[in-house]
Amino acid sequence: MSRKIRRLSLFLCLKWAIVGFPLASAQTPISTDSRGSLDQLVPRQPDELIRRLFDSSLMNGQSWSLLTSLCKDVGHRLTGSEGAANAVILTRNQMLRMGYDSVWLQPVQVPVWKRGAPEQARLLISAPAQGRIKKEYQIELAVLALGGSMATPEGGLRAEVVEVGSLDELKKMPGDWIKGKVVFINQKMDVRYINTFESYSHCASIRVQGAVEAAQKGALAVLVRSLTLSLDSFPHTGMMVYRDSIPRIPAAAVSTLHSELMHRELLAGKKLEVELVLNSSNHPDTLSHNVVGQITGTENPDRYITLGGHLDSWDVGEGAHDDGAGCVHSMEAVRLLLSCGYRPRNSIRTILYMNEENGMRGAREYARLAREKQEMHLVSIESDRGGFSPREFHVEADSQSIAELQPMVGALQDYGIHRIRKGGSGADIGQMRDQCELLIGFVPESQRYFDYHHARTDVLESVNRRELELGSAALAALLYLLDHK
Amino acid sequence: MSRKIRRLSLFLCLKWAIVGFPLASAQTPISTDSRGSLDQLVPRQPDELIRRLFDSSLMNGQSWSLLTSLCKDVGHRLTGSEGAANAVILTRNQMLRMGYDSVWLQPVQVPVWKRGAPEQARLLISAPAQGRIKKEYQIELAVLALGGSMATPEGGLRAEVVEVGSLDELKKMPGDWIKGKVVFINQKMDVRYINTFESYSHCASIRVQGAVEAAQKGALAVLVRSLTLSLDSFPHTGMMVYRDSIPRIPAAAVSTLHSELMHRELLAGKKLEVELVLNSSNHPDTLSHNVVGQITGTENPDRYITLGGHLDSWDVGEGAHDDGAGCVHSMEAVRLLLSCGYRPRNSIRTILYMNEENGMRGAREYARLAREKQEMHLVSIESDRGGFSPREFHVEADSQSIAELQPMVGALQDYGIHRIRKGGSGADIGQMRDQCELLIGFVPESQRYFDYHHARTDVLESVNRRELELGSAALAALLYLLDHK
Repeated sequence: MSRKIRRLSLFLCLKWAIVGFPLASAQTPISTDSRGSLDQLVPRQPDELIRRLFDSSLMNGQSWSLLTSLCKDVGHRLTGSEGAANAVILTRNQMLRMGYDSVWLQPVQVPVWKRGAPEQARLLISAPAQGRIKKEYQIELAVLALGGSMATPEGGLRAEVVEVGSLDELKKMPGDWIKGKVVFINQKMDVRYINTFESYSHCASIRVQGAVEAAQKGALAVLVRSLTLSLDSFPHTGMMVYRDSIPRIPAAAVSTLHSELMHRELLAGKKLEVELVLNSSNHPDTLSHNVVGQITGTENPDRYITLGGHLDSWDVGEGAHDDGAGCVHSMEAVRLLLSCGYRPRNSIRTILYMNEENGMRGAREYARLAREKQEMHLVSIESDRGGFSPREFHVEADSQSIAELQPMVGALQDYGIHRIRKGGSGADIGQMRDQCELLIGFVPESQRYFDYHHARTDVLESVNRRELELGSAALAALLYLLDHK
Repeated sequence: MSRKIRRLSLFLCLKWAIVGFPLASAQTPISTDSRGSLDQLVPRQPDELIRRLFDSSLMNGQSWSLLTSLCKDVGHRLTGSEGAANAVILTRNQMLRMGYDSVWLQPVQVPVWKRGAPEQARLLISAPAQGRIKKEYQIELAVLALGGSMATPEGGLRAEVVEVGSLDELKKMPGDWIKGKVVFINQKMDVRYINTFESYSHCASIRVQGAVEAAQKGALAVLVRSLTLSLDSFPHTGMMVYRDSIPRIPAAAVSTLHSELMHRELLAGKKLEVELVLNSSNHPDTLSHNVVGQITGTENPDRYITLGGHLDSWDVGEGAHDDGAGCVHSMEAVRLLLSCGYRPRNSIRTILYMNEENGMRGAREYARLAREKQEMHLVSIESDRGGFSPREFHVEADSQSIAELQPMVGALQDYGIHRIRKGGSGADIGQMRDQCELLIGFVPESQRYFDYHHARTDVLESVNRRELELGSAALAALLYLLDHK
């Protein structure tokens, strides 16, 4: 793999700074009329093209209108839902209009989980007084069932709440402290990581594994502190798993503000009980699709550079940052290249993966088909960290190979991208790890991402238009730098 | 100047990477008890101290509570207003509580401008029909008087609207097209600059000079398109000037959405008239204050490194980004250094300047006093670009001197600061240009700044807590790197 990367990066090192920009091939319908559209005049230098990609995105790009359609015409897009099916049609049509050489759907069987009627959760607080327990007050808890969670038993459940600060603490607890209770896992995301995705990755296991660990000790249900760095009143949902040999118990996220309240009251010696009704359910797999668009390469039509995001979302908010922004980036970056008159040497594909959130079936199917067809993938790029200002690219490769990509920073730093470094690329393209020379993740500014992540605040209005547009242009520039040998 | 900078940066180049961190001097009350507060243990390496400054800011910093007080307890702080006076008391008390060695007020005479009763503006649209002009419809225009504008005549004014696209266009227009009309200057900020402050600086003259240019041609009033890159319904106010020899006419900002509407209707051949009532007025100067806090240097008590923002704001919103954030950065960065056990070698001052928005009197007075007392200022730093994620520092110096500061990037890049480069520093410290070796402006991410700038949307809620905290820590780290020879 390293040798292939070196081959790829060698020309980047040697050529992009000294070789002129190739004019589009003869068959490309590009006007050279000086009175023609600005977009139709092909610049001759890499810096000039990159400047034009950004200008075009900011002046008359489609990022904002694409995201508006996805968020407001479709809305959220839970795998298997009507919204997801509508998003497939919408984005296929958008790519057809953009002038991709071909656009197709890849059928894929996906899991179906439904939230059902809204959750109900009531917290009952009582305190020891004069030798007995006296009811104090009760509140409605803001909760969301976690993706994949089963429902509570008919009529709901009621049990005492036991708090733990981490999965480790839960594992060490005597079983009789847990049995018959609702476990409340109140682990805070560590605020000290500068990139908030690191905080997330160190904490996400409480949501993913919490139900398994709690059920092993006999808990009736699990409540998990929402995975966000902000103190707010919105529960943040997300994927959880069961294990075959372990009883399945209901699992829900609690808002951070309510998590703080529960923690305070327990610390004060209060007794907390929760009444919980979840109506979620798992169903047989159904048919859905990845959406793929391709610009066929002029020199190497059978070599692929791909750029993608995931089309599905959770069923709250509008999936604007997660991952509407990534879908928009992936479509718009390619359109920007075309509109600036660039015809890629290698084939470039936009891939809108289905089912990243709760199964990764789309990405797996794409990888399976690529393997079956023996397609040669040079680079897989993913945008799944929101629509914020571009900052870095993270590359899965050895240090030497990453060092060889550094000349690209020189071309991108005036646009706010100052680092290309080793790091996780993305969940969807991770399925291509064994079949692709380079995996690259787009890393925008991360401070606000988890304010909206998997919550009903992840709506169009939480996205800044210019930040989104800069992301599309940055990815267009990356595609160009990688393609332009 | 260059030699002095070289002297300053030489030790940065040579020493910060290889020399250990100096323990606080003997008189500093620092616990070395290993069970003491984490903040009280002084790290021995620069990287370690910088890490701790960020950890401390994110874990238990005061940035958010300081900004909350300023925005919610005080609110907006127009120069000469009760809010400004309250902010002086509030921030003086905050600095006293933080443990500054001394805190004092610098008296300064400031201009007084009052908005008076809310503006009224009605747009009347009519169209040619069957040989005569027929009224079509009318709307309330969203406007704000510009800072410094006089009122409209008793009873308001009513006149036809003439649109121009720039000051140049206005200057070229025949006088009889303008005379007796209201000039509407509809110049858009250029979206192509990556740093939005560049867009602003290329467009701000329409607001500052618009009234002078329009009055020279005989206009009755001027309406200026709001200086923001977003399309929104909020007028954005800001400073304007008159010239002694030119008649003074009322001036107001129109929201970008209403600017677009007026442009469309004029393009469609409609006749636009505006009824305008501004109740603003200029008053005699009054007494106000800069607030200055100082930590006296252990080695060079008579050499100063200053960090400041401006305490005044416009009279809409809460001045959260402009420049509550800069005030918070300036106080909190110094507190972070103290709380991490660092005693500076040189004296460090926090300066909260009064009257940046409409007169710069505070900054001028600070500079005048510094000159009078022959104080030796090594570095002046300013934060007046909002509370967003740190990105760069801009330095006013020659290229050679800036090159010599580059080793600092190595210490800061893990915290998102990737560039120290030539550029404008800040309006307040600009007054120290002839008296200070280095002027440095803090440059955070700029995409959202003008969404809020001088509008009623500039409130606490538009600030992200972590982004603000990162700014405070970045400035603390900069202070340390500059002080630590």
